[in-house]
Amino acid sequence: MDQEFWEDKFHDECGIFGIYNKNNFNPAEMTYFGLYALQHRGQESAGIAVNDNGTIIYHKEMGMVSEIFDDVVIGHLQGKVAIGHVRYSTAGESLKENAQPLVIKYTKGHMAVAHNGNLVNADQIKEELEAKGCIFQTTTDSEVIAALLSRERIKHHSIEDSLVEVMKQIKGAYSLLVMTPHKLIAARDPLGMRPLCIGKKEDSYIFASETAALDTVGAEFIRDVNPGEIVIVNEDNLRSIQTEVPEESRMCIFEYIYFARPDSVIDGASVYEARLEAGKILAREYPVEADLVMGVPDSGLVAALGYARESGIPYGDGLMKNRYIGRTFIQPSQGMREQSVRLKLNPFRSQVEGKRIILIDDSIVRGTTSKRIVKMLKDAGAREVHMRISSPPVKYPCYFGIDTPHRQHLIACHNTVEEIAETIGADTLQFLSIEGLKKTPIGARCGFCTACFDGNYPIEVSKEEKYES
Amino acid sequence: MDQEFWEDKFHDECGIFGIYNKNNFNPAEMTYFGLYALQHRGQESAGIAVNDNGTIIYHKEMGMVSEIFDDVVIGHLQGKVAIGHVRYSTAGESLKENAQPLVIKYTKGHMAVAHNGNLVNADQIKEELEAKGCIFQTTTDSEVIAALLSRERIKHHSIEDSLVEVMKQIKGAYSLLVMTPHKLIAARDPLGMRPLCIGKKEDSYIFASETAALDTVGAEFIRDVNPGEIVIVNEDNLRSIQTEVPEESRMCIFEYIYFARPDSVIDGASVYEARLEAGKILAREYPVEADLVMGVPDSGLVAALGYARESGIPYGDGLMKNRYIGRTFIQPSQGMREQSVRLKLNPFRSQVEGKRIILIDDSIVRGTTSKRIVKMLKDAGAREVHMRISSPPVKYPCYFGIDTPHRQHLIACHNTVEEIAETIGADTLQFLSIEGLKKTPIGARCGFCTACFDGNYPIEVSKEEKYES
Amino acid sequence: MDQEFWEDKFHDECGIFGIYNKNNFNPAEMTYFGLYALQHRGQESAGIAVNDNGTIIYHKEMGMVSEIFDDVVIGHLQGKVAIGHVRYSTAGESLKENAQPLVIKYTKGHMAVAHNGNLVNADQIKEELEAKGCIFQTTTDSEVIAALLSRERIKHHSIEDSLVEVMKQIKGAYSLLVMTPHKLIAARDPLGMRPLCIGKKEDSYIFASETAALDTVGAEFIRDVNPGEIVIVNEDNLRSIQTEVPEESRMCIFEYIYFARPDSVIDGASVYEARLEAGKILAREYPVEADLVMGVPDSGLVAALGYARESGIPYGDGLMKNRYIGRTFIQPSQGMREQSVRLKLNPFRSQVEGKRIILIDDSIVRGTTSKRIVKMLKDAGAREVHMRISSPPVKYPCYFGIDTPHRQHLIACHNTVEEIAETIGADTLQFLSIEGLKKTPIGARCGFCTACFDGNYPIEVSKEEKYES
Amino acid sequence: MDQEFWEDKFHDECGIFGIYNKNNFNPAEMTYFGLYALQHRGQESAGIAVNDNGTIIYHKEMGMVSEIFDDVVIGHLQGKVAIGHVRYSTAGESLKENAQPLVIKYTKGHMAVAHNGNLVNADQIKEELEAKGCIFQTTTDSEVIAALLSRERIKHHSIEDSLVEVMKQIKGAYSLLVMTPHKLIAARDPLGMRPLCIGKKEDSYIFASETAALDTVGAEFIRDVNPGEIVIVNEDNLRSIQTEVPEESRMCIFEYIYFARPDSVIDGASVYEARLEAGKILAREYPVEADLVMGVPDSGLVAALGYARESGIPYGDGLMKNRYIGRTFIQPSQGMREQSVRLKLNPFRSQVEGKRIILIDDSIVRGTTSKRIVKMLKDAGAREVHMRISSPPVKYPCYFGIDTPHRQHLIACHNTVEEIAETIGADTLQFLSIEGLKKTPIGARCGFCTACFDGNYPIEVSKEEKYES
Repeated sequence: MDQEFWEDKFHDECGIFGIYNKNNFNPAEMTYFGLYALQHRGQESAGIAVNDNGTIIYHKEMGMVSEIFDDVVIGHLQGKVAIGHVRYSTAGESLKENAQPLVIKYTKGHMAVAHNGNLVNADQIKEELEAKGCIFQTTTDSEVIAALLSRERIKHHSIEDSLVEVMKQIKGAYSLLVMTPHKLIAARDPLGMRPLCIGKKEDSYIFASETAALDTVGAEFIRDVNPGEIVIVNEDNLRSIQTEVPEESRMCIFEYIYFARPDSVIDGASVYEARLEAGKILAREYPVEADLVMGVPDSGLVAALGYARESGIPYGDGLMKNRYIGRTFIQPSQGMREQSVRLKLNPFRSQVEGKRIILIDDSIVRGTTSKRIVKMLKDAGAREVHMRISSPPVKYPCYFGIDTPHRQHLIACHNTVEEIAETIGADTLQFLSIEGLKKTPIGARCGFCTACFDGNYPIEVSKEEKYES
Repeated sequence: MDQEFWEDKFHDECGIFGIYNKNNFNPAEMTYFGLYALQHRGQESAGIAVNDNGTIIYHKEMGMVSEIFDDVVIGHLQGKVAIGHVRYSTAGESLKENAQPLVIKYTKGHMAVAHNGNLVNADQIKEELEAKGCIFQTTTDSEVIAALLSRERIKHHSIEDSLVEVMKQIKGAYSLLVMTPHKLIAARDPLGMRPLCIGKKEDSYIFASETAALDTVGAEFIRDVNPGEIVIVNEDNLRSIQTEVPEESRMCIFEYIYFARPDSVIDGASVYEARLEAGKILAREYPVEADLVMGVPDSGLVAALGYARESGIPYGDGLMKNRYIGRTFIQPSQGMREQSVRLKLNPFRSQVEGKRIILIDDSIVRGTTSKRIVKMLKDAGAREVHMRISSPPVKYPCYFGIDTPHRQHLIACHNTVEEIAETIGADTLQFLSIEGLKKTPIGARCGFCTACFDGNYPIEVSKEEKYES
Repeated sequence: MDQEFWEDKFHDECGIFGIYNKNNFNPAEMTYFGLYALQHRGQESAGIAVNDNGTIIYHKEMGMVSEIFDDVVIGHLQGKVAIGHVRYSTAGESLKENAQPLVIKYTKGHMAVAHNGNLVNADQIKEELEAKGCIFQTTTDSEVIAALLSRERIKHHSIEDSLVEVMKQIKGAYSLLVMTPHKLIAARDPLGMRPLCIGKKEDSYIFASETAALDTVGAEFIRDVNPGEIVIVNEDNLRSIQTEVPEESRMCIFEYIYFARPDSVIDGASVYEARLEAGKILAREYPVEADLVMGVPDSGLVAALGYARESGIPYGDGLMKNRYIGRTFIQPSQGMREQSVRLKLNPFRSQVEGKRIILIDDSIVRGTTSKRIVKMLKDAGAREVHMRISSPPVKYPCYFGIDTPHRQHLIACHNTVEEIAETIGADTLQFLSIEGLKKTPIGARCGFCTACFDGNYPIEVSKEEKYES
Repeated sequence: MDQEFWEDKFHDECGIFGIYNKNNFNPAEMTYFGLYALQHRGQESAGIAVNDNGTIIYHKEMGMVSEIFDDVVIGHLQGKVAIGHVRYSTAGESLKENAQPLVIKYTKGHMAVAHNGNLVNADQIKEELEAKGCIFQTTTDSEVIAALLSRERIKHHSIEDSLVEVMKQIKGAYSLLVMTPHKLIAARDPLGMRPLCIGKKEDSYIFASETAALDTVGAEFIRDVNPGEIVIVNEDNLRSIQTEVPEESRMCIFEYIYFARPDSVIDGASVYEARLEAGKILAREYPVEADLVMGVPDSGLVAALGYARESGIPYGDGLMKNRYIGRTFIQPSQGMREQSVRLKLNPFRSQVEGKRIILIDDSIVRGTTSKRIVKMLKDAGAREVHMRISSPPVKYPCYFGIDTPHRQHLIACHNTVEEIAETIGADTLQFLSIEGLKKTPIGARCGFCTACFDGNYPIEVSKEEKYES
């Protein structure tokens, strides 16, 4: 995926983790390690809330998990149940007030809410609630959900019944954790657009955005939360409420293509396998004669391996990625700006020189980085650079949690593949076809949302909602 | 005032400041200097919010004004109107979520609220609102006020009309600043329990908890906000709504005795004069032969001067106060604990030795510190120590914003004056009488709340409210 | 003392503290509390070094004692002997490398050095050592002393014998603590220009710049280190070496006038008494009819009390000092700059209005602040302001540790008293005479350095040394 | 390379970078980017010193380049010449005083020194110097070198002549940068044990530990500094002094195996090529039937690709590395400790399950991590795990800058290959032979130090030196 090098703001993802401890685990510590495993889903802020006999204490800050928590902080977070959250990073307008979990007091005591996804009708709901006198202190969907939940709670007998009602009102993508005085509740939107899985360690149930977090804490994967399902854990057991759902789920295809860790398994499909297979199909769809297949680290590496295996062309490394780039660094002055990409990536000249190269990336959004990489490889002596993208062209913005740029910045929106190839300086350029995508294990096994490729939005999005996004 | 040395948690005060700029001042900068002047009213957290054409941006943190704001932060807070807040310091359970101003979104846009005081029916209102589905994210009265205001706003034509309604519902002590897209509003509770004054600098109106803040920013004092008054400043002018108020106001007497800066003038009475006069009356009520009159720094110094002037006994210094005590320091180990008071206060041995001393303080709450100081003076060679307190014994807890301890910790609650004298080791001890207090300039000029001395609460406080406090 | 308000850089002082523990005290903790008591001598940096069986561990940082040390840090500083240091604050060119104690390795193991004062021939010694191949990593005199000590140590049998030699080579003002594998050594320059006293707590010896630090840690004052004396504490006992000294000592008079805590006793004279007496003599020398005597807080308060007592004119307060000014604050913009002094000081209008005031300060250096204060009092309604200074005019720069400005900035250097009065706007102005100064308890009892008043430097200072300062 | 997971303290490496600017570059900024590229060589501390007309200003701190420097800091570091340093990370006893560059004052002005390597006779030299009265403030070799240089400088006409003398006295591995008032000097030990190269950007000469840093700042690679060579850059030109050197150089083989970035070229050999070739030779030496070749990320990846290419067995990924592990994290409690390796590495179950795997790593030191990884793969369903190490067994400690553990912790020191295989649970285990190593491009082209494998130390190391290490 090519991003603006100096502002990596592509995605609006989050990661969530929760545990109802029935053993002698330390829930805050386990959530800490779980969030560490989900850090790739958001580096802007992180937080952990624990329920200590009805009182919720929490700690949340801007920054990475490793920066925010230490032994002292974790030591203070004593309790039986915990939920945690990592939030995406944007440049600038991020608000510390938006760090999650959101902890509120409502009529039945305290509640903590953490969620991943994006409601398309959040602004409309907020307006309706404001018109009834409600106030909002953050710009998160979690606050909208908490506000609705507490209003429904006075009309229903339980928090889960309230949630059933709330899920009728909210539209969009969401995976949700709610911690109340006596329960830990997980829920997933009816289309199943964001991942959420259930794990178990001894007698304790765990929820996490990805299975990799279960692996990290040594929990066993039980199953995914189903689209439209509400799962309730309390002192006694784990129960499930299945709300009405459409025939077909619409898992976000980009979880497989880019977001999720390759070692995660989402809705039964291995992310690694999906990427490998995409590379293979790409090789079948768009073969080209070359000496070496290489990927843009790290997003293109797995698909590159797939392409190499299918094509029989040797797989190799061509670009070294600097692993020590901090979240902030000084703005290079004029003389250095041209070199800026070299800070992050540097070619293995000996591998590249004189070779015809197939360069694989997972996607092209703006095209800026791809252009710089192609130039770098050519400068390093590559004879030809054939770029192959393991997903179709991104032509439509996402309203469900992926922070794609406005349409005018999507290079594939107003350029043909040939024009893009010319812009980025590649000898040839091809994208995986939507049909090809459907032949991958994911495409075959489960429904998914491909709106960013084909504009076929799974939920109608009003003009206002589009504008807001 | 004697406090526990290792947890200076006596008071639950705050300071507020606001400006509607119609000149070329920098409202955030002026608020910063105003808060600096009000820092004595709260050292736990501070915050400034500015209204930039309807958008409110803000910065608030735990800590002192000098730690929280710098040129960069103030530089970001561009806007036409600003309000600021400093909050009291307690040990431990203070929540950063409680830092003010509170900034919320409601049906008409953004609103910022900052307040000083304590509502006695806040919990009852919160319960009622929660029962209607409301959620709360802090434990501040500001959030209660904002929630009520936004609910009334959908029923009334203006924010000030809404505030009139809200003031009918809330009970207790409050001085309040509300910043909405087009207005800056100040209000004071019907009993006028907390101070709030109006200043003007060129064409710009300013509100502040104390006149000292006006002096600091070079503003002219106009008048105090009246009890029960709502003052509205907008682009055009300054208007006032006078809500119904009781016949007599009930300014907190402790503002004069302890809280306010001596250079402030509150409701027409100079705090310095009030303390000086209290010392004089105390000298008339409880004379004693002695060689030197000295005050406990800093709270007893002015009354000591008054006592000296009236009695003709020389005024002098007997205790050196260390000005560099940070907000935190390491807990002294057993061997050092006895010495701990010496870190803060140290006697001038040459002044004290062989002398009969009249030691003035403004109040005795627990008695612990007084005991240590008397011992220190005797150890330094004082022949006699006659303690004189420039206010009556504190026998009743305060429910209106002063963080007095529970009754069982109030030494005057269950001990006679003689017993207290014995406990603290003073040769004699006397407190200013309530009648004496009424002869001071304040006593003479305006009604005030003396509930902590006589239990005569100006507002009925229910059992639950007492329990909560 | 008047200083530039926005850069309080008057003094170049330090404070030192050391303890050889023979009881069960925690030396690092005790040093921490001792430094707290000496914080007024330097707020730029602080450090503590402990000797743990020959290994010296230490912690030093820029900042105040309260900011640098916490329970964890103090907990790590385990050892039998400890020395600590606080360093003065200047604006900008302060180097963290200069924080003390300086810890070095030399031929006999580790050594820590902390000192207060200024060597006038440090640069000359450094040049000589550099010409022999030595290198320097800081700009402190402590490094010069350590370098000399280690070179002498290879020629002498003990560190104290080496120190005797070193003291023959260094010229200037110094009070010194040296911690070696087996000893704690204190020394004071032959003229006794900087204070250093010996205390005892149970069987443990303590050294401190001022007696106030002994009081704070509960130690008994034994005696001052004599001019030219080296005091050695080891496992067995306390021994003394008296090096040759001039007939008369030359204690810095400014320690009494300004630097030292008033509750300290230096070389047998109470600082408080000295200031009080200076005020009295000033009243005799320069009486004036007035209604009120007041001091500039805090430096002029004690002398003001003395003046009042002698003159019979009532003592009172006229200026409120804000105690919460942090070490940094934002630069006020143009509109606020005029008001800047109000941030620190604010008049008690009711005390000042219509009165003829005698305003006492300890000294005038540049005159800038005095001018602002006089104006403030006049603006507050003072009828007359008669300024009286409790020390003679500062006409000569100090080369022994007091960071006085260059001569051209010393207002008394090129202006008559009348001209200064006019500049600062006082109705009359008078300075204590040198003869008057000599009548104070200090003047009577011990020799002192008055070079800043009369240019009579106790040590010849070469042109280069003057230039360097 | 297997390391203790909770204390990654294997190496004692550093990275250095310097530039003599003759264009309009910003030397501090360029050094910042250069250090970024060398961050893998040390994460404990970093520093930059610039020479501004003879005055050296610098900034160095504990932490990563990205944490230490920002626009403000870099903006202050104005000067014509700059050198920078990154230092290795150990757990705990690291001293901030040891951060480099070391800046000192000597007889000719200021000097800054930065170095990479380890002197085996540093302690002996220090003792000799201490016996002459010298003092030391750090435990770095840079201080030893600076002390020697300044002593020689008083006997020789130039700093480079002094360095010639110093290089006769110091024994060990070092690559060195020295910045004096008028020169930038680079030197490499006579055996060329540590890398150092020369680059040029327009007219400005640059020195860097690795060519990757030249690439990053857009400089052209000129050549390596030769073993025993001193290179002097001043205003006029670049000159070289070649000191006497042994016939064969002894570049540290571990730079190729582990330390250096694979995109660097050292002494004419590509690090990437060397690793790839090692993998190929390993495949020829120790073939085994299997389904998949995979590397331990990141150290074994390139050799794994080489093994795969040579063997014809498919290359694949088996382990996901978490890229977000901070430098510190909370110690996992008992229940989590077993899972700790999962925080860093997680298997791709779908790739591993049922397969016979060849697992490549670059080295085995303690064996702890290898054991955990093998277990993880077996738990993930691997049928067989054949471990192949792309370097010979590490049997001897390094005294030249590689922080290998004491011999008793080197698993290969007292175990046969079979015993190690059993310990770590691998079905088979083989190490590249020393002969095989010599067949790689490096082995073929240049002499290198293989002491850690064969105990054949290029410099005699005395017992004391061994003990010290």
